[in-house]
Amino acid sequence: MKLYDLPASPNARRVRIFLAEKGLEIPMLPVNMMTGENQTEDYLKKNSLGRMPLLELDDGSYISESVAICRYFEEMQPSPALMGSGALESATIEMWQRRMEFEFILPIISIFRHTADMWKGRFVQIPQVAEQERISVMARMEWLDKELIGKQFIAGDNYTVADITAQCAFVMAKAALGIRIPEELENLSDWWARVSTRPTARA
Amino acid sequence: MKLYDLPASPNARRVRIFLAEKGLEIPMLPVNMMTGENQTEDYLKKNSLGRMPLLELDDGSYISESVAICRYFEEMQPSPALMGSGALESATIEMWQRRMEFEFILPIISIFRHTADMWKGRFVQIPQVAEQERISVMARMEWLDKELIGKQFIAGDNYTVADITAQCAFVMAKAALGIRIPEELENLSDWWARVSTRPTARA
Repeated sequence: MKLYDLPASPNARRVRIFLAEKGLEIPMLPVNMMTGENQTEDYLKKNSLGRMPLLELDDGSYISESVAICRYFEEMQPSPALMGSGALESATIEMWQRRMEFEFILPIISIFRHTADMWKGRFVQIPQVAEQERISVMARMEWLDKELIGKQFIAGDNYTVADITAQCAFVMAKAALGIRIPEELENLSDWWARVSTRPTARA
Repeated sequence: MKLYDLPASPNARRVRIFLAEKGLEIPMLPVNMMTGENQTEDYLKKNSLGRMPLLELDDGSYISESVAICRYFEEMQPSPALMGSGALESATIEMWQRRMEFEFILPIISIFRHTADMWKGRFVQIPQVAEQERISVMARMEWLDKELIGKQFIAGDNYTVADITAQCAFVMAKAALGIRIPEELENLSDWWARVSTRPTARA
């Protein structure tokens, strides 16, 4: 088994943190997107969309999509549960995971793609999209701050995949876009202090 | 238990088809977005993002996000399995579900939001986004056509939630945007004939 990794990618980091929380170590193979390693015939046979992360299993199967890879490990090693157990808990965590994905990680990646030099020429950049997404992300931080009232973690009392998604979004927002969690959003700032100091946060 | 529904929404349809495939009937309460029923104080208490579909449980819990609602019913009534069982099958179906979501349903909804009269004034429309998304959707149809070689359904031999997501995307593409599956894409056209004639397709 091995994981094709893209070290700077927030989606790849989601899987790395998930594995670290499970205490699992998988051989990692970094793929260099800048030199087009992910667009070679060989790599496209593994993942026809040319993306990372990608899990290669010993039977020759491949799983792409960060959350699908997380699902694989959750099923293989249920403890500690990061995707919940039972109908209501699993569904609640999935709801929050998806909210963090749609409200934060997708628009933050979109701002980056529409503005970063590394995407010039690889992608039709529309600066107005980045402007709108930035407004939306700031508004959603205020929303999330209110949603965190009385909660330790995004989906409730336990640390879950929803926190991992949000964490990876905010790491990218700060590092690549200079977007920080405003100090006056106290619940969100407290949550950030809790998750960013976990031993797995730098995975 | 009841489901707050938005009859024309592809996301709400995903849940309705999922329920129909499971043979489950849940009371449905249509919410009128055009008159702002989803932005009332009462509704925002149920779902602070003001979106449909939304599942209300008898204990007063709420689950939003179409796939999270599907997860709830999959756990409550595992048969027929629409999200897989075991690590590899569950992860493979989740991979395909997410690919159908990111490559089709999200860009198709985005084209609609960036061009439709009903979104004027509710949303900053950027026509260039719709143009780019349209190019991408057409290219992804060619990709999916190749991925369907030798397969009955999107994730393999069985009908799953990944088919439901793709189906709802293509229903919206045709009805709202006039985007049809090109006839020369034979595998995709055959798949469409298979899924669109299921008794649940009009749910």
